Amino acid sequence: MYEFTPSYLKAVEELHNLPGIGPKSAEKLAASFLKMNSEDFQAFMTALQELRDKVKQCSRCYNLAETDLCPICSDPERDQTKLCVVEESKDLVAIEKTGAYNGLYHVLQGVLKPIEGIHSHKIKLKELFQRLQNESFQEVILATNFNYEGELTAMYIVKELKNTSLMISRLASGLPMGSDIEFADQLTLKNALRGREKFTEEML
Amino acid sequence: MYEFTPSYLKAVEELHNLPGIGPKSAEKLAASFLKMNSEDFQAFMTALQELRDKVKQCSRCYNLAETDLCPICSDPERDQTKLCVVEESKDLVAIEKTGAYNGLYHVLQGVLKPIEGIHSHKIKLKELFQRLQNESFQEVILATNFNYEGELTAMYIVKELKNTSLMISRLASGLPMGSDIEFADQLTLKNALRGREKFTEEML
Repeated sequence: MYEFTPSYLKAVEELHNLPGIGPKSAEKLAASFLKMNSEDFQAFMTALQELRDKVKQCSRCYNLAETDLCPICSDPERDQTKLCVVEESKDLVAIEKTGAYNGLYHVLQGVLKPIEGIHSHKIKLKELFQRLQNESFQEVILATNFNYEGELTAMYIVKELKNTSLMISRLASGLPMGSDIEFADQLTLKNALRGREKFTEEML
Repeated sequence: MYEFTPSYLKAVEELHNLPGIGPKSAEKLAASFLKMNSEDFQAFMTALQELRDKVKQCSRCYNLAETDLCPICSDPERDQTKLCVVEESKDLVAIEKTGAYNGLYHVLQGVLKPIEGIHSHKIKLKELFQRLQNESFQEVILATNFNYEGELTAMYIVKELKNTSLMISRLASGLPMGSDIEFADQLTLKNALRGREKFTEEML
C-alpha cells in the first residue's frame, strides 16, 4: 500500500516522540519544516545544536548555565546564608522575577515521584545535603511545588535536616491575589487561615 | 534581572515559532532536548535534516517524493485517465488507504484562501490545468475538503474547466458511517438526500 516517503515518516516519528506532540501535531510540524525557507531551517537547527552544546548545569546549584558557575552563584552580592530549593530552573527564574529574594538557589532537577521510580538518588538531593554541610547557610527555603510530589519532597528534606541548626521555611500557601474566598478549595483556605499575618497599614 | 541562559532562550524562541507550539510547550521541548541522551538527540537532528534534504515534490503531481516521480506517478498500472485533485499529500495517503481508487493524483499544496492572500498562483492550479491539457485524462475527481476554502477551490476548478470535455466529479457529501440522522447538520442532510443512491441487496 502506498505510504508517505520514508524520510517524511521517520521525521514524523521523531517529532511524535517529543513530549506533548501527538501524531497530528507531528505531521503539521514536519510539513512546516518542509515549507520553511533554508535560512529559517538552518537557524532552527543551529539553535537546537547550541542548546545542546552550550547549555550545561551550574556545578554548584545545578541551574542551567553556559559557564561553570551560573550568574547567580558567581555573584558575590547575593546573600550566601540563604538557600532556596526549587524543582527546576524555571521556578528559579519565576522567583528571580519577583525581585524579592537575594539568596542562592539549589535546583533539584526534578522531584520525588515514587510511583514513577524517581527516588532521592535520581534528583540532586545528595548534592543539596552536601552543600548544606560544606557551605555556610543559615536558612533553607523550600520552594517545591504545592502538589503531592512537591510536598513529599519538601517533607523528605525537612526530615533529613531535623538534627541540624538550619532554619527551614516553606513558601506560604494561601489565596492567590485576585481570587475569591468563595471559590478557594478547603485546603488552601485552611492554610491561609493558619498562616494569617498581622495586617498593618504599611502592607497596603 | 536574571534570566535563562541565552542559548536556552534562543532555542525556546525557535521552538515557539513552530506552528501549534505555545510558550509553555516550547520550554517543555527545550527541557526535553537537554535531557535526551546524545544518540536520541543525534537521531532527531538527522531525521529533520534528511526530511529537508531528501523529501522533494514529485515533478508531475507535486506529491511528496524522494525521487523525481513519486511511486504513484511512476506506476504504469495506475489508470492514466483519472485524476484526483487533493489539497495535500496527507489527503492522497488517506484516499490510498481506502484501496478504492487506482487513478493518478494532483496535489495542490494548499487551497484558495482569499482572506489570507492565497490566490490561484500560490497553489499548484496552473500546473493542474497544464496537466489536463498535456495528459490524456477523461475524469477529474475534486477531492478538496468540504469546508469553505475547499468548496471555493473546487468551484474555481469547475469554472475554469467548463469548456472542456472532461467529466468532472466531486466526492459525495453525506452522512458519515456510524452517525445519527438526528444529529446531522442541515447542509449534510440536504446533500445526502440530493445524492441518494439506489439501494440494492448487493450493497450490504
